Amino acid sequence: MHASNATPHLTLDDLQVGDRFSSGEHRLDAAQIKAFATQFDPQPFHLDEEAAKSSLFGGLAASGWHTVAITMRLIVTSGMKIEGGVIGSNAEISWPSPTRATDVLHVDSEVIEVVPSASRPDRGAAILRNETRNQHGELRQVMVTRIVLPRR
Amino acid sequence: MHASNATPHLTLDDLQVGDRFSSGEHRLDAAQIKAFATQFDPQPFHLDEEAAKSSLFGGLAASGWHTVAITMRLIVTSGMKIEGGVIGSNAEISWPSPTRATDVLHVDSEVIEVVPSASRPDRGAAILRNETRNQHGELRQVMVTRIVLPRR
Repeated sequence: MHASNATPHLTLDDLQVGDRFSSGEHRLDAAQIKAFATQFDPQPFHLDEEAAKSSLFGGLAASGWHTVAITMRLIVTSGMKIEGGVIGSNAEISWPSPTRATDVLHVDSEVIEVVPSASRPDRGAAILRNETRNQHGELRQVMVTRIVLPRR
Repeated sequence: MHASNATPHLTLDDLQVGDRFSSGEHRLDAAQIKAFATQFDPQPFHLDEEAAKSSLFGGLAASGWHTVAITMRLIVTSGMKIEGGVIGSNAEISWPSPTRATDVLHVDSEVIEVVPSASRPDRGAAILRNETRNQHGELRQVMVTRIVLPRR
């Protein structure tokens, strides 16, 4: 388990399958949920508590893309420190349960694959599994990302 | 090809594999890119033109999650009109090229699978392929989403 400040700028050569990183926390609230939804996902169940009651969510829920965006902020500001920055080429995301206004979110990341480039000796890719949970350990999102990294 | 207002509220029974929907447009600029990045993906290549020049992007680039968020806004406000709203359970995303400040984005969506629920006669799922392109037809993002829909 690396602390977030143990290795300030990681390259591909510093990562091993099974390495884990934990982020700090982000405290959500209804105002943040509605502000994000107003800008990017203006649907009643992300904007209004009353309207959300009769939706599939049964109450106000954050846009899944809001959970994604908070997850990215947590990774970038308090998770892994990657040399050259965290640059993803693709991602797979699932939302096992809705993110709620009372959630305090954090992200646990694990390296599940390290892939040196066959054609470029100066770089490679790593595949990370990032689990976003609230303060009760409830799993809100699983995001598997492929990121590009330089070599040492 | 459905116009965005041809079928106001679609259910699973209205969708067929091969159905296509096109969104309106969203004009990006450097201020939007930096505002999103400041909040959710604060990395130099999303925040500062000079710093971005020496990055893998070779110039200011939008966060991939910003492209995702704009894509969702376009789908919700001007793309498919789904009964009960657009609710995704999972998504796969790739970014073939960086989104730039001069981009005017639009989304072309296609139904690639329709899946009635085996256990719930009142609902099902559809898998959509959403391509986000700029005004020159350059492909910025491919997002494949599984959404939940009611039946008629």
